[in-house]
Amino acid sequence: MADVVSRYLSFLGAGTGEDIAGLFAADAVVEDPVGGQVLQGRDALTSFYSRVTAAENSAELLTLRMAGNSAAFHFRVVTTTEDQVITIEPIDVITFDDHGLITGLRAHWSAEDVHTVTR
Amino acid sequence: MADVVSRYLSFLGAGTGEDIAGLFAADAVVEDPVGGQVLQGRDALTSFYSRVTAAENSAELLTLRMAGNSAAFHFRVVTTTEDQVITIEPIDVITFDDHGLITGLRAHWSAEDVHTVTR
Repeated sequence: MADVVSRYLSFLGAGTGEDIAGLFAADAVVEDPVGGQVLQGRDALTSFYSRVTAAENSAELLTLRMAGNSAAFHFRVVTTTEDQVITIEPIDVITFDDHGLITGLRAHWSAEDVHTVTR
Repeated sequence: MADVVSRYLSFLGAGTGEDIAGLFAADAVVEDPVGGQVLQGRDALTSFYSRVTAAENSAELLTLRMAGNSAAFHFRVVTTTEDQVITIEPIDVITFDDHGLITGLRAHWSAEDVHTVTR
């Protein structure tokens, strides 16, 4: 599970939508942020993560807790655009199947947690 | 939700099993830690939290993220016994009903996250 979390964060910075979607089971469900749209399945995830990875991101793990078939982790994502540096530090929870594929991802963050600095 | 999290942590330090169980909906489900026994209902929760609060604890919020009907939070619990000081820093996820009562709590920590120092 720690390896998958590490690859997820690495792919956020330097991967493609396909790279990230490949970490998930075929019928996996993503809610990012929690309370937002619920995405299910490889196509929807590839599309979603292609948009995410199109930006210039770097991601860093802050805290990881593993228990049962779940990993909860606090991390920092910094997205740099032409005129802004945007930092979010969500707490995500990922559940896994027996093959180590992600079956669900719930990302806990809201607009209040988005810190934007003009470059 | 932030207020309930604050009361939960405060009650871990200076409350009773009834105090904590009173934060939960009647049929709420607790899995602490995730992968362990699943407890459901006020009686089971009162009993569980009575054992927890019988110890000398202090709890401190480290990070709180709220989204949708969920709160995810990283916190520190320090339990002092006659001969040991035990520190755990779980990541818990709580879901709420429309009345602000907790419907579910999942605590992400494992034996590896328990730090024990002999007094």
